[in-house]
Amino acid sequence: MSMLGCVTSPSPSDPAPDSLIQRKQRRARQRIIDAADELFALRGFDDVSVSDIAARAEVGRTTFFRYFGDKTEVVFAREQAMLDVIARAEEDASAEAAPDARAAIEQLLPIVLNLCEHAADEPDAFERRAKLLDRHAELRARDALKTQQLAGRLSEVLRRRGTAEHIAVFAAQIALACYETARRRARTAADLIEETRAAFTETLSLGRP
Amino acid sequence: MSMLGCVTSPSPSDPAPDSLIQRKQRRARQRIIDAADELFALRGFDDVSVSDIAARAEVGRTTFFRYFGDKTEVVFAREQAMLDVIARAEEDASAEAAPDARAAIEQLLPIVLNLCEHAADEPDAFERRAKLLDRHAELRARDALKTQQLAGRLSEVLRRRGTAEHIAVFAAQIALACYETARRRARTAADLIEETRAAFTETLSLGRP
Repeated sequence: MSMLGCVTSPSPSDPAPDSLIQRKQRRARQRIIDAADELFALRGFDDVSVSDIAARAEVGRTTFFRYFGDKTEVVFAREQAMLDVIARAEEDASAEAAPDARAAIEQLLPIVLNLCEHAADEPDAFERRAKLLDRHAELRARDALKTQQLAGRLSEVLRRRGTAEHIAVFAAQIALACYETARRRARTAADLIEETRAAFTETLSLGRP
Repeated sequence: MSMLGCVTSPSPSDPAPDSLIQRKQRRARQRIIDAADELFALRGFDDVSVSDIAARAEVGRTTFFRYFGDKTEVVFAREQAMLDVIARAEEDASAEAAPDARAAIEQLLPIVLNLCEHAADEPDAFERRAKLLDRHAELRARDALKTQQLAGRLSEVLRRRGTAEHIAVFAAQIALACYETARRRARTAADLIEETRAAFTETLSLGRP
């Protein structure tokens, strides 16, 4: 995973891309995520402060704010990995412009399945997060915003490949609808991928007699 | 429009459903919306407080909080009217259970078109709001949450008519995707309705060869 979203960068003298400093940074970021995850599960979201999370992760508050804007952002740390997946799809220069909505939606399917794998790669964390969102409107608002940001990125992927904007916007919203349907239908993290695939298939056969 | 979301209710001695008190309440609520609208346009969202809005609307802060949880809620006052539209659709007992996703999406089309009419009935306010949302991530987060709440209500409409949950969830997300596509494609409030209709038509012909 890249260090996208991390404010600090390795010093110019760093020889390798995955230097000691970068590994340390990644570990600190992960400790913050794990600490927040544990504390939210133990005490609930409202009763945990940034200082509590930093203390449990054994980092300073300054380090916390190097990686996350606020405690809500920690809940959505996984989205960063998801945006990375999309960023890689954007760099896939071999893909061609989609001539119509159907082709555009089909181009988004493998990207969204990849997102699902990232979202579901830690089943316990996935379920804890689902419970947290159930309980907090504030987190659902942030989640809804992040999801719309994903749609914006999906649309951007298509446009960079030369797809017309009115097709790209529509295909991204439909892809998102499939993903959101799957999130609501899936009972476990493992179901998410299959439910997403099923929702795409269902969408792409809506017009069949 | 009903007074849904209004904390106070008419006193038990009120004879008519649209009593003097209710008309006063409705006017006070509308003055707050208009005052907020003017102040946000003049000074920007961040530099306007609840007290500023209350003062311009010539109501007390207590009255403000009787109608709105915070200043962000005023921006979404129109959503209340939209939820009313859906509430009325829920009460439409004549509608039957949708046997499949296509039928379910078709049942949602008139409701979503009705929502569009409400969203677009004041073109100037519609455009001012679009600009406000462009500038404020906080408002986009609330907007995204409100939109997901609409999807939840649309799904509920279908379920009350006896439609299977897995179909209702999918149809509501697809209907929402059409509405969101239209919001992004529409250049003016007037375009919104036609763009929504077009997105539904496009979706329902995706599987055609």
